[in-house]
Amino acid sequence: MTSVFAFEIRPAARADVKTLVAFIHELAAYEKLSHEVEVTEERLHAALFPPDGRPAAEAVLACVNGDPSGFALFYPTYSTFVGKPGLYLEDLYVRPAFRGHGLGTALLHHVASLANTRGCGRLEWAVLDWNQPAINVYDRMGARRLTDWTTCRLTSEALARFN
Amino acid sequence: MTSVFAFEIRPAARADVKTLVAFIHELAAYEKLSHEVEVTEERLHAALFPPDGRPAAEAVLACVNGDPSGFALFYPTYSTFVGKPGLYLEDLYVRPAFRGHGLGTALLHHVASLANTRGCGRLEWAVLDWNQPAINVYDRMGARRLTDWTTCRLTSEALARFN
Repeated sequence: MTSVFAFEIRPAARADVKTLVAFIHELAAYEKLSHEVEVTEERLHAALFPPDGRPAAEAVLACVNGDPSGFALFYPTYSTFVGKPGLYLEDLYVRPAFRGHGLGTALLHHVASLANTRGCGRLEWAVLDWNQPAINVYDRMGARRLTDWTTCRLTSEALARFN
Repeated sequence: MTSVFAFEIRPAARADVKTLVAFIHELAAYEKLSHEVEVTEERLHAALFPPDGRPAAEAVLACVNGDPSGFALFYPTYSTFVGKPGLYLEDLYVRPAFRGHGLGTALLHHVASLANTRGCGRLEWAVLDWNQPAINVYDRMGARRLTDWTTCRLTSEALARFN
């Protein structure tokens, strides 16, 4: 792939939290899930840069000429079958004007490389069934889609009942 | 549900690692995934009871007359949409002789209650499409199945290529 953009990938810093929240809203709009977004800058800051130094998640940015134009956010997991930690890619997003130039693939490669460096057995993420462009990228990377598994979720009132 | 077994749920201790590894093998056999199991006692011990006090996962046991008869294993997650941590239930298992007496439901309730105590926005897990008894339990609990999402996984050689 020939890119007309020169870009670099770097870890997100405290000053990027505002940008990340904007990107999260843009991603949710793309996924037609804006109604699910409750994140605030305070909440995201607390997750990425907590006082105890144990972040709930990490984020990296893809920057074009220094401007953040996409991001990946991930956190550690654990597989009992493999007996090793893994990484879960919660979000992968590239702004529309910068799509098709390899930023998304580069972000995914970056996180996969981190997973290897950390001795992880798996890197996992989820894709919406109608997002065929993304599915094509993931298939080409050699990712397996776990079509016989369905994620279950307890949230909001359904979760709050369990006290 | 009337249970003929009196059981209690307690956190797993170091002495339970051997039992947990046996349960993981039994769970994998039930899921027809024994070929995926690579866990060892050493690996699981390192995940649950690491020297740095930052476990990759936590486990609880359901005990009948003091004997471990089922377990749940889970780890923290993070939702950018909610802007809060969550819990992911990696494994939920009850030995065949003790099924149908509420141990599995009690383990799930226990983890859901922990999620609430910790201020989590979500509790998630995955179910195999052919496991209708489990699906029925999850539906009754008010869990939503995310049928429009598919999990993607990079593992083994496909993951190792990204350096």
